[in-house]
Amino acid sequence: MMDENCIFCRIATGEIPAHFVYQDDDLMVIMDINPLAPGHCLLIPNYHTKYLHELPLNYGEKIGKFLILITKALDTENYNVLQNNGKLAHQDIPHVHFHIIPKPGKDEGLGLRMPGKQASSESLGELANEIKEKLNTLL
Amino acid sequence: MMDENCIFCRIATGEIPAHFVYQDDDLMVIMDINPLAPGHCLLIPNYHTKYLHELPLNYGEKIGKFLILITKALDTENYNVLQNNGKLAHQDIPHVHFHIIPKPGKDEGLGLRMPGKQASSESLGELANEIKEKLNTLL
Repeated sequence: MMDENCIFCRIATGEIPAHFVYQDDDLMVIMDINPLAPGHCLLIPNYHTKYLHELPLNYGEKIGKFLILITKALDTENYNVLQNNGKLAHQDIPHVHFHIIPKPGKDEGLGLRMPGKQASSESLGELANEIKEKLNTLL
Repeated sequence: MMDENCIFCRIATGEIPAHFVYQDDDLMVIMDINPLAPGHCLLIPNYHTKYLHELPLNYGEKIGKFLILITKALDTENYNVLQNNGKLAHQDIPHVHFHIIPKPGKDEGLGLRMPGKQASSESLGELANEIKEKLNTLL
C-alpha cells in the first residue's frame, strides 16, 4: 500500500534518493537527513498509513525484530527509540516511522520532558480495565 | 530470565502489584503509576535485560505486534511510543520497557525537543555504510 504523494513511499520506490541502511519487501531503514545526533536513522514500513494503530500486525512483528537488529548495529549504549503519531505528538511525515536516535551527550540527541504525576490507584484501575476490554476485542 | 531485584520482574511474578492491561508468558502491559497523561502504559518483556539491543529477536516480534494492538485499544489519534536506553537517554528502570503515551493536549503527555540539523550527504553516506556493515553481520 503506497501513496504517490508521500516522501517515504517515493523513497521506497527509488524515486527520491536516500542513504539506505537496509531495505526489503516489508520495510526500509534510512538515515534521517536532519539528525538529532550522528547515527539517527528511521525504520519505515513499506505500507502507507499515518498511524501505528493502522498498521497490519505482521508489519509490527517485523519492525520489532528490526528495532533490535538496528540498535545492535548502532553499537551504542545510550539511545532512544521514538515513534510519533499525530501532529500534536510531533509527527512530521504522515507515514508511520520509528526514530532510532543515539544519545552521545546530555545536549545531543533527543530532548525529553517527562514530568509524570502520581495517579490514584482507582483511576489507574479504571483505565486499565477500559483498555483491557478494548484489547480483548482485538485478540 | 528474571532479576529478583528488578521492580518489573517482581511485578511480572506477582510479588509487587500493578494495574495490568495484559500479561502472557512473553510480556506484560501495565499502567505507568506516574503517567504523563491518562492512559500512559508500559509494554514490558518478561526477559530481564537493560537494553533493547540485548533482547532476543522473538521478543522484538511480539513487542512490535503488541505495540499495534495496544495503540488500537487506546483509541486515540495523538500519542507517542518511546523506549529509552541508558541513563543519559532518560532510562529510569534498567529493564527494557516501551512507553505508550497519549498526547491529549499541547502541554500534556510527552514533551519532545527535536532540533535536527541538516547533515552532509557525505557524512550520512559514511554512517549508513558503517551501520549497514554491522547489520549485515547480524542478518
